[in-house]
Amino acid sequence: MIIPDNVDQQMMQRCLTLARQGLGYTSPNPLVGAVIVKDGKIIGEGFHPKAGEPHAEVFALREAGEKAVGGTVYVNLEPCNHYGRTPPCTEALISAKVARVVVGMVDPNPLVSGKGIARLQEAGIEVTVGVEEAACLRLNEAFCHRILNNQPFGILKYAMTLDGKISSSTGHSAWVTGTKSRQLVHQIRAGCDAVIVGGNTVRRDNPHLTIHQVTGVNPLRVVMSRNLHLPEEANLWNVDIAPTIVFTEWGNNPSLQTKLRDKGVEVIELSPLTPSQVMDILYERQLCSVLWECGGVLGAEAITQRVIQKIMAFIAPKIIGGFSAASPVGDLGLDKMSDALPLQNVSFRQVERDILVEGYLEAI
Amino acid sequence: MIIPDNVDQQMMQRCLTLARQGLGYTSPNPLVGAVIVKDGKIIGEGFHPKAGEPHAEVFALREAGEKAVGGTVYVNLEPCNHYGRTPPCTEALISAKVARVVVGMVDPNPLVSGKGIARLQEAGIEVTVGVEEAACLRLNEAFCHRILNNQPFGILKYAMTLDGKISSSTGHSAWVTGTKSRQLVHQIRAGCDAVIVGGNTVRRDNPHLTIHQVTGVNPLRVVMSRNLHLPEEANLWNVDIAPTIVFTEWGNNPSLQTKLRDKGVEVIELSPLTPSQVMDILYERQLCSVLWECGGVLGAEAITQRVIQKIMAFIAPKIIGGFSAASPVGDLGLDKMSDALPLQNVSFRQVERDILVEGYLEAI
Repeated sequence: MIIPDNVDQQMMQRCLTLARQGLGYTSPNPLVGAVIVKDGKIIGEGFHPKAGEPHAEVFALREAGEKAVGGTVYVNLEPCNHYGRTPPCTEALISAKVARVVVGMVDPNPLVSGKGIARLQEAGIEVTVGVEEAACLRLNEAFCHRILNNQPFGILKYAMTLDGKISSSTGHSAWVTGTKSRQLVHQIRAGCDAVIVGGNTVRRDNPHLTIHQVTGVNPLRVVMSRNLHLPEEANLWNVDIAPTIVFTEWGNNPSLQTKLRDKGVEVIELSPLTPSQVMDILYERQLCSVLWECGGVLGAEAITQRVIQKIMAFIAPKIIGGFSAASPVGDLGLDKMSDALPLQNVSFRQVERDILVEGYLEAI
Repeated sequence: MIIPDNVDQQMMQRCLTLARQGLGYTSPNPLVGAVIVKDGKIIGEGFHPKAGEPHAEVFALREAGEKAVGGTVYVNLEPCNHYGRTPPCTEALISAKVARVVVGMVDPNPLVSGKGIARLQEAGIEVTVGVEEAACLRLNEAFCHRILNNQPFGILKYAMTLDGKISSSTGHSAWVTGTKSRQLVHQIRAGCDAVIVGGNTVRRDNPHLTIHQVTGVNPLRVVMSRNLHLPEEANLWNVDIAPTIVFTEWGNNPSLQTKLRDKGVEVIELSPLTPSQVMDILYERQLCSVLWECGGVLGAEAITQRVIQKIMAFIAPKIIGGFSAASPVGDLGLDKMSDALPLQNVSFRQVERDILVEGYLEAI
């Protein structure tokens, strides 16, 4: 039973909860959930499970059946009004004779934005727009960025001590943060389509970059290595667990290229090899979100090329010291403190003993 | 009128508020406030304003006068039972015929701890101990550390970007944090007896190290400069605003030593010049708390010599980048991340757009 106060907000939050069930599976599509309410009761729910499968509204309408007539449909993103891989949701809603549609946010694509809403209104359906809009935008920030910029949404994640170091002077880094923070990183990975590291990280840490102790799907694992001086054996070359792409520059280390391809690793040669070029290819491959778990050199290159939109900084309450200890971001060519890149919409929270600070390099 | 629920806690918090009025003036004495309550009304209040002047209880008893008979006295620190510069407060309380004394925390000095309470109990006064004890300990953490360790309490304060830099690669650092954080630093200074910087900070920033836009007293300004390569003109040499001591090694730059002394700056030669030696001298000078506002080299030396008890890290939500950009703590000789110094009792809060993280290098 629905508590009558703030019904629209409550039902939109329910849509977001449903939508999150698709996390990691829907790209290049958005995360969408839908709820149908009639006479104070939920009569249908659904979410978009995967690109190519029906949209959230369709699942909710199926569950509601004929009871949908005269009902109110909640959906966190404007219903589509065009034929893609599936028929337009607007037509399904009109056929079902619903009385009202509550939309969390309009479609970010300027070519179709508002058209779904207009179609519903033309058909005599009451439409409310912008309920829990900030939360809706946040959930699909990667999708929105991709649509508007033709590149995946980039997140730079790092873990540092309270004195700003990601490792000791000797390069030792296991572990900066506590177990809860490291588990949260697995959750973040599960919500991203790919994880990128540089060659240094492969050589030094031999990471898996998979998810553990959380539900979801392993992201695509991406290595950027200009010289391709990488070990012949590495956890990332085991593609039974998750696919791996290695990007390198044309013609480098051809014998290793062959060996990697033999193991099932995809090797892509680019000249020059840049974060921006890599993101272009990942965009073409339909990815929405990319997590950069790289060191300071590659992270700085990615920031400079504007392929990082969000920073997630885990800060551990400990002091390691060291002038030559690595810090999370390399040279950006900024001479004055007043030139520093300010973060927008900053939030922070405690994760066990650590602090997670999140913010955006550009307002979204 | 006092709200009857949690009277003891409320009155102890009132003691702490009163006690804070002495902030910056009381060293080497503690911050103490006292409240006398009778028939649900406050009939007397006081705080210890300055070493050499009467204790908080005396002021409160004076205000209460004969009404104190049968009243309850609240005080955040155990009343003294010995003749120092003033007669013992225990005798004053007994003479005033109060019925009950509520004590926030016992005296940290093991030589006298508990004796004041015992004396009151012997005289038939009911004594309650440990009300709001954590807050009482926190307020007098510097005093307690000094008594127990024969050294002032050391606080290392720094401001860094979210990527762990205290300046850009070129050394530019104005400003890392926002106006509210910088104003808070002035408040922190007003609560400390001295501020220490190294020669680099004097050469590069020419700081005043005084307080602005907050009430209170300027701390003693201390410079540690091994070689004494310092400018002849500097804001710190204007001792009309606040006193300045320069510590250097024996025999260095005697002509500058003379010039500084002529300006009224005290110059002290030590061999070797170490943070620990400087803290010993500041202890002898009756200081309770010392704020280290130095760079990473001196800060690391101070941590290694265990004269830093507390870290106050201001983190600004911005990214400056730079491999050669300075970070807040220099070499501590710690090779493994697992050797990092953990902070205890960590707390954090938002200060405008910045985050202030506070913690202790040793449990206090």
